[in-house]
Amino acid sequence: MKYGIGIDIGGTKVSMVLGTRKGKIIGRRQIPTLKHSRAKECVANIVDNLEELIKEKKILRGNIKGIGVGIPGAVDSAKGIVPRSPNLQGWKGIPLARILKNKFKKPVYMTNDANAAGMGEKVFGQAKKLKHMIYITVSTGVGGGIISHGRLLEGANYVGGEIGHITIVPNGNRCNCGQRGCLEAYASGTAIAKTVNRAVRTGKGKSLQKRFKKKSGFSAKEIAIAANKGDRFALEVFKEAGNYLGIGIGTLLNIFNPDSIIIGGGVMKSAPKIHWKAMLKSAKKHSWPEPFKKVKIKRTKLKDEVGNLGALALVFDKD
Amino acid sequence: MKYGIGIDIGGTKVSMVLGTRKGKIIGRRQIPTLKHSRAKECVANIVDNLEELIKEKKILRGNIKGIGVGIPGAVDSAKGIVPRSPNLQGWKGIPLARILKNKFKKPVYMTNDANAAGMGEKVFGQAKKLKHMIYITVSTGVGGGIISHGRLLEGANYVGGEIGHITIVPNGNRCNCGQRGCLEAYASGTAIAKTVNRAVRTGKGKSLQKRFKKKSGFSAKEIAIAANKGDRFALEVFKEAGNYLGIGIGTLLNIFNPDSIIIGGGVMKSAPKIHWKAMLKSAKKHSWPEPFKKVKIKRTKLKDEVGNLGALALVFDKD
Repeated sequence: MKYGIGIDIGGTKVSMVLGTRKGKIIGRRQIPTLKHSRAKECVANIVDNLEELIKEKKILRGNIKGIGVGIPGAVDSAKGIVPRSPNLQGWKGIPLARILKNKFKKPVYMTNDANAAGMGEKVFGQAKKLKHMIYITVSTGVGGGIISHGRLLEGANYVGGEIGHITIVPNGNRCNCGQRGCLEAYASGTAIAKTVNRAVRTGKGKSLQKRFKKKSGFSAKEIAIAANKGDRFALEVFKEAGNYLGIGIGTLLNIFNPDSIIIGGGVMKSAPKIHWKAMLKSAKKHSWPEPFKKVKIKRTKLKDEVGNLGALALVFDKD
Repeated sequence: MKYGIGIDIGGTKVSMVLGTRKGKIIGRRQIPTLKHSRAKECVANIVDNLEELIKEKKILRGNIKGIGVGIPGAVDSAKGIVPRSPNLQGWKGIPLARILKNKFKKPVYMTNDANAAGMGEKVFGQAKKLKHMIYITVSTGVGGGIISHGRLLEGANYVGGEIGHITIVPNGNRCNCGQRGCLEAYASGTAIAKTVNRAVRTGKGKSLQKRFKKKSGFSAKEIAIAANKGDRFALEVFKEAGNYLGIGIGTLLNIFNPDSIIIGGGVMKSAPKIHWKAMLKSAKKHSWPEPFKKVKIKRTKLKDEVGNLGALALVFDKD
């Protein structure tokens, strides 16, 4: 049973990989995420693609250990039913784990995508052998996968690890989740874009307007490009976002005292250096010396494969 | 091996109990905590008192399973050496676990006092059989004991669970720990007293001055007494403190998604009802519906025994 299947279900695409227990990917498929009335069609497409992939790579069924699925939202990993998720309209309630189990006659492990990413770091990444590790993804939102005593912290009803939604500013900015003052409302790509676009409306950020030859609607990625080219306004915004991210990390340090924090996601990939620096400085300021000295704060090395490897890791975690 | 010994070491007294695996206390001793150059004398006193207690209760050595010790600070429970602690001057570095083990030839389990209290709830209290539970103590400071997957979360170097020191107000009030904006700096008894005494200096709280016939230096307990008698100013201060406590609890709910949060400590015992109400309202506001609906937030029933039973629980946890 050398192989596993990893399925990373996102709002725009479904990525499927066939991989080894060492995390080597030997084949992959990618299909668009169909939504609303076409959700079930998408599930059928997943099954078809996997069948083809297995055939193509000439893998014996007996050599496949299981299927791991990472998916947004509060997944009950015992039941494996797709939960409510704003980016997967029409999917809620689909018994995805059971469907896959019936089709492939293999165990199916399904969990939240950020949790899966944490497992990817634990099984294939920089957190092997670590008992206390936190994976943080900073992209459109801010998510987390927490490994405590070597186990994924899912909580009593599978919403554990929602570190993007800890309150860092009482009565602060409105977050997409409905709360106010969440870490995500200050440190995510969405927050960075919002801050800039709000400022632009009040006459700031003329340099951005010139650079991108548009008046409004700057994305976090565009702002990062400008910052990396030395745009002062964009740099300042990233510095602030890094500072807020550090507040959240400081809180996690004092609560968990982890061996390691590993950070990934689109914002981390594109952000200017000042963002990382501000994050570290703020994490130090907002935590005790003991956990701050102990922790290693690192960038993920799994990069774009973190979703795939996270899903695959669910299969091999129990080994 | 029916009996265990629990030792709760505090800044003013050392409490020792002899108890059963059901948490029944059958004998106890209490001695003052000697500090500075007399710390080692105090350890000798602990040993003497335990010897006497065992003799007095006619317990056979063979019926004693082990010794549990709860102590303030970041205890390395594997080593059992007394850590740095502002309230235990002169104790730092004493190999207490080894001393007790050599004297009594029994296993010694030593951990942070708030962590021990969490174990008390797990082994003897309302959290039996719960996998995800957080004990919060609100007294002079704010501390926590986190049970995750049925195990005490101690972290990589035993400073885990310091929930009093999560940042809830960026650049906020100075905390005793040196950070700014900690939960403890807003929700502890110390914080409540500070808020009131600061306000009194600017001419507020005349009702308190009248009630206690003094001009300044009101304690959290006095403020609670006034609040329970309907003093508006004192009630308002407790409402605010409850609100801040709820912010911290909301953060814990979104991170841990626990089955239960159990709260104890002097402030909880004396606070007016509005404090609990404000805490609940704020916890709801600062967390997602899923974890808030799931969690049961309760007062400890272990009351004044929580320290003793916590230490005792360390002995029986492994059963």
